[in-house]
Amino acid sequence: MFQLSFMQEAIELSRKNIAEGKGGPFAAIIVKGGAIIARGTNIVTSTNDPTAHAEVVAIREACRTLNTFQLEGCDLYTTCEPCPMCLGAIYWARPDTVYFGSTRSDAAHIGFDDRFIYEELERAFSERKIPMAQKMRDEALIVFREWETKQDKIRY
Amino acid sequence: MFQLSFMQEAIELSRKNIAEGKGGPFAAIIVKGGAIIARGTNIVTSTNDPTAHAEVVAIREACRTLNTFQLEGCDLYTTCEPCPMCLGAIYWARPDTVYFGSTRSDAAHIGFDDRFIYEELERAFSERKIPMAQKMRDEALIVFREWETKQDKIRY
Repeated sequence: MFQLSFMQEAIELSRKNIAEGKGGPFAAIIVKGGAIIARGTNIVTSTNDPTAHAEVVAIREACRTLNTFQLEGCDLYTTCEPCPMCLGAIYWARPDTVYFGSTRSDAAHIGFDDRFIYEELERAFSERKIPMAQKMRDEALIVFREWETKQDKIRY
Repeated sequence: MFQLSFMQEAIELSRKNIAEGKGGPFAAIIVKGGAIIARGTNIVTSTNDPTAHAEVVAIREACRTLNTFQLEGCDLYTTCEPCPMCLGAIYWARPDTVYFGSTRSDAAHIGFDDRFIYEELERAFSERKIPMAQKMRDEALIVFREWETKQDKIRY
């Protein structure tokens, strides 16, 4: 169930983040059982980590707190529609619900690549701005076969 | 220019990763000026970090090494087609080229959600397996306006 106060806190966090010069105008909060268990803000430029978006930072923090790599029973509040990286991270972490404020187009209007990256995902490898080429699939697949037959593996 | 030995080393790393029980059968290497500057493997289950895919781990390591959040001049070798999270991370880090071994379908065949997540990205928010709802856009946009007028911001 959406709770106004959590989104308000996330928005306030995003405001504080730019005031303090830590990174872009984005913040995220993860809630479980009515309580905040993790907070994250965009700290890309201040930590030299292009993956340190608000959602990724919050997901990593929540998983550390809960000592798990799965966020079932959790809701994620984020001030902006997650970019493809963060949306991917969300699917891997599997929270129950995501609430977001502004959109990928709003982010594009202030100079962030979110919408561009969504568009790139739909392009063929050869037509992408960052060229991507497939190589040595057969050799790579041998390790997948080894994974399949491994007895003591942890699935996720 | 693709170099066979780098992909061979990445594949060997992915093999070692499952043998040592650190995570899934995936590894990535980042090369600059003909030398390896970062290595990453999937350590999701051993570190309780759902974002710790090989590419993300390698990108974070390369950025730490180079002291930057941009990987121009770098090539990324990964043993499998990047999932949406990793592809997003690649676009934010902006290496020159990506070489990958197996595909999202190959990963799906051994039980990983890569292809499923690509499909989810194209669905409307209300039709996604993880429900996503937009809330309080107007309030979130106020902070975007503050970002726009901020004088000393670092863009990326």
